[in-house]
Amino acid sequence: MNKLDSAGHSIYFETGLESLANIVESGRYSKIFVFADSNTSELCLPLFREMMNDFHGFDLIETDPGEENKNIDFCIGIWKTLLDFGADRKCLMINLGGGVITDMGGFVASTYKRGIDFINIPTTLLSQVDASVGGKTGIDVDNVKNMVGTFTLPQCVFIETAFLKTLPQRELLSGFAEMIKHGLIADQEYYQNLKNSDYLQVSAPAIYRSVEIKNDVVTEDPHEKGLRKILNFGHTIGHAVETYSLINDAQPLTHGEAIAIGMICEAFLSSTNNTFKAEELEDVTAYISKLYPAYAIKEESFAQLMEFMQSDKKNENGQIMFSLLSGIGKCDYNCRVSEKDILESFAYFNHIGFNP
Amino acid sequence: MNKLDSAGHSIYFETGLESLANIVESGRYSKIFVFADSNTSELCLPLFREMMNDFHGFDLIETDPGEENKNIDFCIGIWKTLLDFGADRKCLMINLGGGVITDMGGFVASTYKRGIDFINIPTTLLSQVDASVGGKTGIDVDNVKNMVGTFTLPQCVFIETAFLKTLPQRELLSGFAEMIKHGLIADQEYYQNLKNSDYLQVSAPAIYRSVEIKNDVVTEDPHEKGLRKILNFGHTIGHAVETYSLINDAQPLTHGEAIAIGMICEAFLSSTNNTFKAEELEDVTAYISKLYPAYAIKEESFAQLMEFMQSDKKNENGQIMFSLLSGIGKCDYNCRVSEKDILESFAYFNHIGFNP
Repeated sequence: MNKLDSAGHSIYFETGLESLANIVESGRYSKIFVFADSNTSELCLPLFREMMNDFHGFDLIETDPGEENKNIDFCIGIWKTLLDFGADRKCLMINLGGGVITDMGGFVASTYKRGIDFINIPTTLLSQVDASVGGKTGIDVDNVKNMVGTFTLPQCVFIETAFLKTLPQRELLSGFAEMIKHGLIADQEYYQNLKNSDYLQVSAPAIYRSVEIKNDVVTEDPHEKGLRKILNFGHTIGHAVETYSLINDAQPLTHGEAIAIGMICEAFLSSTNNTFKAEELEDVTAYISKLYPAYAIKEESFAQLMEFMQSDKKNENGQIMFSLLSGIGKCDYNCRVSEKDILESFAYFNHIGFNP
Repeated sequence: MNKLDSAGHSIYFETGLESLANIVESGRYSKIFVFADSNTSELCLPLFREMMNDFHGFDLIETDPGEENKNIDFCIGIWKTLLDFGADRKCLMINLGGGVITDMGGFVASTYKRGIDFINIPTTLLSQVDASVGGKTGIDVDNVKNMVGTFTLPQCVFIETAFLKTLPQRELLSGFAEMIKHGLIADQEYYQNLKNSDYLQVSAPAIYRSVEIKNDVVTEDPHEKGLRKILNFGHTIGHAVETYSLINDAQPLTHGEAIAIGMICEAFLSSTNNTFKAEELEDVTAYISKLYPAYAIKEESFAQLMEFMQSDKKNENGQIMFSLLSGIGKCDYNCRVSEKDILESFAYFNHIGFNP
């Protein structure tokens, strides 16, 4: 269980960064950069250094934390910093942080001088179970999530649960939403196990299983031509809610909180537009709404949410496309849903008592 | 001679865009965009439409012409325009223009929503013999040429000499420099044939041979790990001179003019640092200096030129790397050259009478 071979690269679990120490000491790279945000540079960098035998042979590139900084302006800044540091094509970038860092760091690395090597060390639960696999890099433009990016694999990925100890509870809960999603779309037993577990005590084997599910899907369909779209369950509405919240809420939702909302709405759509049963919907709704904080999808936001969904990357020919459950542990993609049904799913969500 | 199969895509020669008409009529794409600059939209678009059976089923995205506009700000503008037009992942971008359009259009397409299909129709001699092959996309950041980009292949490339009829002589001469380079690095006979030809009457078979030479090289080494670097002969100094000229000269050099200068300097370096013979140097110098307009590499520019060369993408561990001829038709790469020799090559250039 300490290594998972994905297409073209390896994902290491709980190995104490041993092979990374070997890589940086091999002299294969002309320079080594660590890319982190101010949070991870304070909280995770000391642990990283310690695991790497008191490693100091790198330049640190630090950015501001938060999704709102995963944008092109910061990218330009990092490209220029690399140039100022004299980074050539043979340098290595180590992305140490959550999804913002691995998404943006991956994009910068995959485009700087047409591509330098990078390695991801996801330090949040969310990035460990989600961003760590699949080779998606990306940044937001005009608040549209991941509007620009590439499909580029890191050289390898290191997952160390030791980093999770620095995480606030809310961040653990955010990552847990993606794990629930993995169960719902692909593994009923795993979903049941999660229901009987405590997200504050998330285990390495559970993380491994999530990564394995995602890896199986992306290996079969790396460029999201078909099957990979099932990973977007909960994300069509979830992303729209997240974007709206980022712009309008004083305390914006985390990614996982938005996806939790999206999963309830899309479980409802699965019951009206696919073979998902009423009792399955009830089960999912009860579990998620107990776990996640209350929220209301305000009526005045409906039009803007629809607009955000119109620019969803899964769409084809202007038609909003959903990935919908056909049962717990099974998911279909390319499902068309009417605007009326989408609005009804908002109403369903607002009436389940999730409403504050 | 009407189709060359390159790794993963085809390059069509003088086929009157027939297969392109088939592709756009197939309905495979949700939307079609033509990306052009104001020059090519005026001069080449009418011919494009005519060849495509009076085709109007596309949205035009127009930008300002010139290398100085191949930058990230224009990219952001194009990404946003695509979004405003409702471009999804199944749309097609047709890049109609010179290297600026195919480089920047390719970069925008390869990163928009993590990549949409694109087709290149190079309309200048330079882009037909150079940018058309090899899958390099790129933009300039902070005046550093192609600092950011990807390796992404177009779906296919169409080369039509009919577009060259709209080109000013100076632009033909610019592209001709790359053809001379192809002869010098890979095919002595081709070089001799070019010497006996008139660049104003450049022939389709000659263009085909240039594309073939470049294609053979990039097929063997798509990501420029080794052999592909020979295509940079003349470009280490040439790019630096071009960048300097773009910033400082009222009438900046064209790419080919800069590369012509770079080829003379690097032919000199080939004679001092490789097995290139004195009479070969004389031959190359005489031919190129007769063909291209006079220029002087000013002494006050030397320091800045060295600085530009320091950020050349071929460098490793801070060492400037050259591709140098070992004879006419043969080229080596990863050649180290001292700063003293580089300065001497400037002096050689300034004393051959090329100096105005």
